[in-house]
Amino acid sequence: MTDAPMRESYSPGSFRPLTFHDATEVFATGTDSPRDYLERCLATIVAREPRVQAWVALNEAGAREAADASTARWRAGMPLSPIDGMPIGIKDLIETHDMPTRMGSPLFKDNHPKRDSALVQALRQAGALVLGKTVTTELGMSHPGPTTNPFDASRTPGGSSSGSGAAVGARMVPVAIGTQVVGSVIRPASFCGNWALKPTQGALNRGERQGLSHSTVGVHAGVAEDMWLVAAEIARRAGGDPGYPGLFGPAAPPEPRKPATLAVLHGEGWKLTDAPTKAAFARVLEALRAAGVAVIHPGENPALDALEAAVADSMNLSTEMCAYEMRWSVENMIAQHPDGISDSLRARLVLGRSITLDAYRDLLRRRTEARARLAALSPVTDGFIAPAALGPAPKLGTEAGTRGTISHTTGDPSYNAMSSILGAPVVTVPLMAVGGLPVGVQVMGQQHDDAAVAGIARWLVANVPPVED
Amino acid sequence: MTDAPMRESYSPGSFRPLTFHDATEVFATGTDSPRDYLERCLATIVAREPRVQAWVALNEAGAREAADASTARWRAGMPLSPIDGMPIGIKDLIETHDMPTRMGSPLFKDNHPKRDSALVQALRQAGALVLGKTVTTELGMSHPGPTTNPFDASRTPGGSSSGSGAAVGARMVPVAIGTQVVGSVIRPASFCGNWALKPTQGALNRGERQGLSHSTVGVHAGVAEDMWLVAAEIARRAGGDPGYPGLFGPAAPPEPRKPATLAVLHGEGWKLTDAPTKAAFARVLEALRAAGVAVIHPGENPALDALEAAVADSMNLSTEMCAYEMRWSVENMIAQHPDGISDSLRARLVLGRSITLDAYRDLLRRRTEARARLAALSPVTDGFIAPAALGPAPKLGTEAGTRGTISHTTGDPSYNAMSSILGAPVVTVPLMAVGGLPVGVQVMGQQHDDAAVAGIARWLVANVPPVED
Repeated sequence: MTDAPMRESYSPGSFRPLTFHDATEVFATGTDSPRDYLERCLATIVAREPRVQAWVALNEAGAREAADASTARWRAGMPLSPIDGMPIGIKDLIETHDMPTRMGSPLFKDNHPKRDSALVQALRQAGALVLGKTVTTELGMSHPGPTTNPFDASRTPGGSSSGSGAAVGARMVPVAIGTQVVGSVIRPASFCGNWALKPTQGALNRGERQGLSHSTVGVHAGVAEDMWLVAAEIARRAGGDPGYPGLFGPAAPPEPRKPATLAVLHGEGWKLTDAPTKAAFARVLEALRAAGVAVIHPGENPALDALEAAVADSMNLSTEMCAYEMRWSVENMIAQHPDGISDSLRARLVLGRSITLDAYRDLLRRRTEARARLAALSPVTDGFIAPAALGPAPKLGTEAGTRGTISHTTGDPSYNAMSSILGAPVVTVPLMAVGGLPVGVQVMGQQHDDAAVAGIARWLVANVPPVED
Repeated sequence: MTDAPMRESYSPGSFRPLTFHDATEVFATGTDSPRDYLERCLATIVAREPRVQAWVALNEAGAREAADASTARWRAGMPLSPIDGMPIGIKDLIETHDMPTRMGSPLFKDNHPKRDSALVQALRQAGALVLGKTVTTELGMSHPGPTTNPFDASRTPGGSSSGSGAAVGARMVPVAIGTQVVGSVIRPASFCGNWALKPTQGALNRGERQGLSHSTVGVHAGVAEDMWLVAAEIARRAGGDPGYPGLFGPAAPPEPRKPATLAVLHGEGWKLTDAPTKAAFARVLEALRAAGVAVIHPGENPALDALEAAVADSMNLSTEMCAYEMRWSVENMIAQHPDGISDSLRARLVLGRSITLDAYRDLLRRRTEARARLAALSPVTDGFIAPAALGPAPKLGTEAGTRGTISHTTGDPSYNAMSSILGAPVVTVPLMAVGGLPVGVQVMGQQHDDAAVAGIARWLVANVPPVED
């Protein structure tokens, strides 16, 4: 354990995230270099990792070698991309040839497939440094890993992309890759003060992880520019999932874009949201109105109410769909290792076994209907806005959001299941602090409008004063 | 090498395929049993395998044990399903926990993941005997395995489901599972005298093999009943691909169903079809008309012509989409084993590297457009009919259908790419012989009309006299 503080009060107005896009300006002159940038990241990791525990594996030697090559390219004026030399963490569900892929499960402790997932190939082709693997909850599901919140080590960083969220929040790396099936990107980003993109369903190639029909890859970053650049460089090189058109939008970060209208989406989260977070969010809405944005509330538009109704049971819908889709895979795990899965994962298996094909078809029908209701709002609003989480990160071990036998020990994802079900793009921005801890504001849009959502999110941060209670 | 003949003349009228659905009637009485049935299959394998070479691995001990358990269930009047006790071959791209999965590639010779794919779990749950793994071409692509045609050992069995097609044609097993991305189920079925179902895209769970956006699992069988029963038992237990509603239709084989109208689909195949096969197919159409079915030909309906135009370049469309989608995966293979892939697979990788995201989007757009044109024909015709292959199986080593650097050494799939692109269900029936070798007739329908297509195919076989030149 180092001298890093247990707690570091967070202020969205004064917190200085680690950035990369603006560091590259001097890489050509030699004032700074990807190697020097990497060494600073490694120094931060040395200082903070003992408490944060964001990493499962680091490949410092490989990253240093890649950083030196990147340094030479920048000096020669020939970087491979704007993210050439950027140190990146990869959630430990995703394969990298040079490190194991342990998936937060003892069943995979010796798993080392020696392959690069599609997005990892894309990142390397773009010159990025694949620095290490970040902690995930068990198979990206509920059972937590050791990671702590970078602003309060007694709290969860969120999950399942726990290490990715925390590594960015702790300024260890400017960007880390996560995945989301319910709330696994947006929730940890909210708790760790990050920007994050959970793109349109299928927009970023999931590589070997095609087994769940509404999971996505996502990007955690300190700032909008780095977030978008990484997503765009992945999409350009690795595309989206098979059969999907991939992320649409410019190569450069979308410019801030003022929305004419934003609709507030309550979903399942609002009634569970803590009072200070509700108050902070009300101040965000107030600032939006003051800036001339028309804000539509639940109850004010029938199409919006129809969407609210369609996402009112998103948590169950998502949990049941996933349980059905992953059942055969989990059956294989327990066949080999009857005691190798958590009680919560076992509960998901039991649920999956109970779902018939007809019942699954009904879940699909409900999801399709919800997506149609989202599409119907395209002429009504430029986007949707909500808190990204019920409040700041709960204490480690709090089973907030636990539903029946399926626990949620890294925070309640009630605000996140809706966009997962809808396959809609979400950007969360670190715009609020509650009790000195970060809480995000999420902007959601129509499928394939990822760039517009990112533009609105940038406008929001530039025009809505950060809110601190 | 045994005394099995090099060549056995095929007649669709007199060939007696191996059947299972009618064997179970006496399993309860003890006149026959799953164990006895299995032993007969094993005896056929002993006699014919030296020449046919359909199998990569057999688990005789496991199958015998499962057969004994099945025997006890039938005797007790409690079979798990209509296919309880059925010996089945599994294409060696699909994982079974008890055998390796070598994928026709030296890169996977030691691959033994000890998992059951989703459909294999379903088959075991239904009581079927997972007898062995059948030969596939390299990774289900072009480079052939050692399998020979069961009716002429100097000819190809077709591919990529070479062993599955041949094992059924050689009466070694009543059913074998294949996969298709271009023509890998329908083409070998045509060459080996099988029935086969290439279902609607997504209708049968592909398990770990979700990487190509229009590949499917398919079923080879001696007769319609066994084909459908196996597909239905898989769908009921393992569903379709994640996000898909799975195979629609009854648990029992669909009854023969006379179509009012059938449209002839020429696609890319007709102009390449050999003259005797064209003549044989003309006699099929003649018999259809004689039986009162309205047959629509290309040129007779604008919507049909629009579909023909949309599938006129299906081979290239499919090849390019697959090359793009599998690129990252093949990159991993050559990174580890630079000399471990065939020239033809390397050519596919080079092609994949050349395709940009924008170009892939255009391919997707063309596929979507072709599917819309198929749907537009729903009010016009009950289904589509075409030869299942250009003619009988070519000689081993003939590079029929080779396009540029991408070879097709297991026959030309020109008649098959169209239904793959369309995601449409196809049933091929062994209705023709040309030069004493089988050639199938394929029936295609609208997406999710698999049961109707199977019903039409059954009606066809019951009402159109087999054609022999």
